[in-house]
Amino acid sequence: MENSNNSNEPVVYRGLEGILAAETKIGFVDGQEGRLSYRGYDINTLAEQSNYEEVSYLLIYGHLPNEKEYKEYVEKLRNESDLPDELYEIIKKQAGRTHPMTSLRTAISYLATFDKKESESDFASQEEMAIKIIAKMPTIVGAIHRVYTGQEIVKPDKNLSYAANFFYMSLGRKPDPMESKMMDTALIIHADHGMNASTFSALVTISTMADMYSAITSAVSTLKGPLHGGANERALKLIQTVGTPENAEKVLSEMIERKEKIMGFGHRVYKVYDPRAKILKQYAQYITERNNKNLYLTANKIEELMINRFGSKGIFPNVDFYSGMVYSALGFKTEIFTPIFAVGRISGWVARSLEYIQDNKLFRPKAKYVGEKGPLKYKPMNERE
Amino acid sequence: MENSNNSNEPVVYRGLEGILAAETKIGFVDGQEGRLSYRGYDINTLAEQSNYEEVSYLLIYGHLPNEKEYKEYVEKLRNESDLPDELYEIIKKQAGRTHPMTSLRTAISYLATFDKKESESDFASQEEMAIKIIAKMPTIVGAIHRVYTGQEIVKPDKNLSYAANFFYMSLGRKPDPMESKMMDTALIIHADHGMNASTFSALVTISTMADMYSAITSAVSTLKGPLHGGANERALKLIQTVGTPENAEKVLSEMIERKEKIMGFGHRVYKVYDPRAKILKQYAQYITERNNKNLYLTANKIEELMINRFGSKGIFPNVDFYSGMVYSALGFKTEIFTPIFAVGRISGWVARSLEYIQDNKLFRPKAKYVGEKGPLKYKPMNERE
Repeated sequence: MENSNNSNEPVVYRGLEGILAAETKIGFVDGQEGRLSYRGYDINTLAEQSNYEEVSYLLIYGHLPNEKEYKEYVEKLRNESDLPDELYEIIKKQAGRTHPMTSLRTAISYLATFDKKESESDFASQEEMAIKIIAKMPTIVGAIHRVYTGQEIVKPDKNLSYAANFFYMSLGRKPDPMESKMMDTALIIHADHGMNASTFSALVTISTMADMYSAITSAVSTLKGPLHGGANERALKLIQTVGTPENAEKVLSEMIERKEKIMGFGHRVYKVYDPRAKILKQYAQYITERNNKNLYLTANKIEELMINRFGSKGIFPNVDFYSGMVYSALGFKTEIFTPIFAVGRISGWVARSLEYIQDNKLFRPKAKYVGEKGPLKYKPMNERE
Repeated sequence: MENSNNSNEPVVYRGLEGILAAETKIGFVDGQEGRLSYRGYDINTLAEQSNYEEVSYLLIYGHLPNEKEYKEYVEKLRNESDLPDELYEIIKKQAGRTHPMTSLRTAISYLATFDKKESESDFASQEEMAIKIIAKMPTIVGAIHRVYTGQEIVKPDKNLSYAANFFYMSLGRKPDPMESKMMDTALIIHADHGMNASTFSALVTISTMADMYSAITSAVSTLKGPLHGGANERALKLIQTVGTPENAEKVLSEMIERKEKIMGFGHRVYKVYDPRAKILKQYAQYITERNNKNLYLTANKIEELMINRFGSKGIFPNVDFYSGMVYSALGFKTEIFTPIFAVGRISGWVARSLEYIQDNKLFRPKAKYVGEKGPLKYKPMNERE
């Protein structure tokens, strides 16, 4: 019975906390050990030795590609990386008016317009749409960044890797090898992370046999919320506000006294150092050396003070504490941080959506009805209070 | 621990079936008794005596409006019913290329572009966005229907009721009183229905403190799936295929033998006659009298045969069996049936979203990891199979 309200008081699982909603073979987060792995490969191994194209293939197809598979996959991504002029026009129109995540949400939804198979839901069509969306994601976010910063749009250069191309389309210059590696790593470590809210949102949508554009539009809609995306913006702002290592102790103490949230620390799952933060910290140190060493030293001091104070309670830096610093040092505007997250996470979104529909079940939990039982009498308007 | 895979074999709730995910005071579905009520008012009472504007207010604010409240609410809806020319242009551009639900998804997302408060998530801003979206929904879907049928767009007439205006903008002529009543009733009975997939999708999105445009974009994305929206298209097709009452027995028997699904029958929740179908059946009879009586007689014969055969198993006509017939007889194209559903459901989507964020909790269930544990060794590409 729907929404029943009986005397046994059935349990309401607020936020579905602790509820297992699906099985997956895609990714594993071990919060106690501080490990993250994709299809059994440790995130550190992948960050060091792989690249985003390969990781994307791994998440979707379950194994690392051989030479032929890799070539074909990369070819597909490159061939599909262009956007129709009409979509560039839509992105340009939104300039100066909308949040970049709004532009991204609209662009993904609009993209379906150019795909004749957009309303088909057989597996092959869904997979085809998935690859197209992965391919176009950096082009869309790059264009949004250009338009948002009042600059000319840069179209894809098909000789570049996925990450280097994203950097190029966003910043208008080709990355040096170290920048390219940093970009690649940032996308890899954001590619998948358990059943987070945006991934879950994609699954809810695709479970109705809706198409992949619909599922990814939902995921972007959900990532837009500040409780999900956006923490790295606020972590960077904290570091900038503290400003110098010397200020850290005073500012932090005051914040803690006022019970303010210290952004970039603590994680629902990780009770030890977030493995992604560890990787990004090295890059943050490297890249701030050349343009803003003080920022890194400040962050490092904040980290030291926070771990001393809260480390025993399982509170450590999370991925957001260093990612914003890296993106900012690379030249990205703060407002584009969450769309960068989406460029990385797109592979996880589609991989888990494709996995889910192979053993599909419509998501439809219940709500517990706690309202007026009625039936109430309908009073004419002039008799209402 | 996220995605843990231990020997106690924790239960996976596929599709979250049977899980209570939230509390609500908005709507109650009693599947055993065949009752649907909004805030304690029976759907039959509301269909007979109320109108969509009032029901929309009731769902959101919890009580029927007094004269002053009603006037103000209707005024707001009318004032906000216009679309910017730019949005009409976007809708026109998609003509002949996209599924109407794709156009609707994109239009709702794009709508945020015109709202300076689109990224705010305080309650007052969310409520303001909600009213704007309700107000513009019929204008958007009306425009999509016009464009889809190759006709000139019709702008809102602010002297008409919500339902009559939707009819007018969709079909290009003002409804007679009976058509207006049918349209109004169809919207009322679709306004809310428990924690269905699209409503749940809106809640998942807004639980991240994303804005109302994002939440409704998700809901539309999810409604697009044929397992959720679209059943009335296929029910109507079934009735049209059967064609005459005399054919019904033969066609049905063959379909049942081939184990094909008979669209428009049976419901996950209702085990008796769907109260919404009962209301629509009267309208179907009335309206087909004047233009296609045979269709109604065929439907009636199908219903009789199905109830004789499966009624004892709790299988009866559901809302989709008669809604498509009514929409079609009113003059709507089949492809617009699901967007009409959205015009009705918009009040339920926003009411439940606004209710949820007043006691918000981020939705984040878990997935059970059943994949390769690793850590796997990273082989160079030329050593892979």
